[in-house]
Amino acid sequence: MKFCSNCGAPVVRRVPPGDSLPRAVCDACGTIHYQNPKLVVGSLPQWEDKLLLCRRAIEPRYGYWTLPAGFMENSETTAEAAARETLEEAGARVEIGEAFSMISVPHVNQVHVFFRARLLALDFKPGVESLEVALFEESQVPWKDIAFRTVGLTLKHWFADRARGAFGFHAGDIR
Amino acid sequence: MKFCSNCGAPVVRRVPPGDSLPRAVCDACGTIHYQNPKLVVGSLPQWEDKLLLCRRAIEPRYGYWTLPAGFMENSETTAEAAARETLEEAGARVEIGEAFSMISVPHVNQVHVFFRARLLALDFKPGVESLEVALFEESQVPWKDIAFRTVGLTLKHWFADRARGAFGFHAGDIR
Repeated sequence: MKFCSNCGAPVVRRVPPGDSLPRAVCDACGTIHYQNPKLVVGSLPQWEDKLLLCRRAIEPRYGYWTLPAGFMENSETTAEAAARETLEEAGARVEIGEAFSMISVPHVNQVHVFFRARLLALDFKPGVESLEVALFEESQVPWKDIAFRTVGLTLKHWFADRARGAFGFHAGDIR
Repeated sequence: MKFCSNCGAPVVRRVPPGDSLPRAVCDACGTIHYQNPKLVVGSLPQWEDKLLLCRRAIEPRYGYWTLPAGFMENSETTAEAAARETLEEAGARVEIGEAFSMISVPHVNQVHVFFRARLLALDFKPGVESLEVALFEESQVPWKDIAFRTVGLTLKHWFADRARGAFGFHAGDIR
C-alpha cells in the first residue's frame, strides 16, 4: 500500500494510537488500511476410490498438480467458494460435504480450507487455469509433483482417514 | 475503493478480461484490486464447567456478550490469532486446543473460526475493547444478550458437545 484507497493521498507506515502493529495510515483523511490473511478454499472431489486433481496452467507452480481451490470471494460461503473453484478450474460439478482441513500458511498470509466433495458426473474438463484434470487412486497420485504443501498434507490425511474408515477434521499450520 | 493504492489514480469498477466479477481496476497502472472475506478468529476459554465471555466496550454490539475474538492479522496462524485476541480482549492466558467451529457470514464478508481453549489462570481482566470479563456456567449464559449469531451458535454447539461427552467440529453458514 503506497496511496490511500479512500482519498488518493500518500500513506505512511506507523503504529496508530491504541494499536500494537504498524499499519498503512493516511494522514490526509485518517483512514487506517488493515491487511489481513486471505482464505484459499477448495475441494477433494471423490469418484469411487479416486480423487480429482488439476495440473496448473498458471504460476506459481505451473505444471504441478493440485486440488481445485482458489481465493474466496466476498458474498459467498466457504462451501460455495469450494464448489465455484471446482467448477472453474476442473469443469467439475460436485456436491460439497464436510469441512476436512484448515491449514494456516503464515509466511504467505493465507489460510487454506478444503471440503470433502462428491463428484456428480465425469464430464469434467480443464478450465483456463488448468492444463489437465484427472482422477487418481492413492497409488497413482503424483506425490513428487504436488503444487502446494497444504494440498499434499490434505491428500495424505484424506487417504489415511479413508483407510481407517472415518473422516475427521484436520487443522494445522505450515511454516 | 476509490483510488489506486499502487499509484493513487482513480479506480473504476468493471469486469477485467478473463474474470467473471466486477473489480476495482486502475486504468493508469493496470492494478486490479481484489476484495476478499476476512477471518475473525477466537477461542472458547474453559475453566472447569464454565466458559469465559467478554462484554463489548466497542461497536458494533456495545454492551453485549461475546467470546474473545477478532480479525486475524498477517503473519500469524489461526491458533496464534485466537490466543492473541483472547489475551487482548480478556487478559486471559489460554492453551489453544482443537478447532471447534467455522461459520461463514457472507453478508458481512467474514468467516468466523473458534478454537477450544484451556484457561491457564484466573487473572483475566477486561482489555480496552471489553467492559467486563466473566466465567459462565451453561445456565448462567446471557443468551438474550449475545453479541453475534456465530457466537451464540458456537456456544450452543459447545454445551451440547460437552453434554454428550464428545467435541466435534462444526462448520456452517449464517445468512
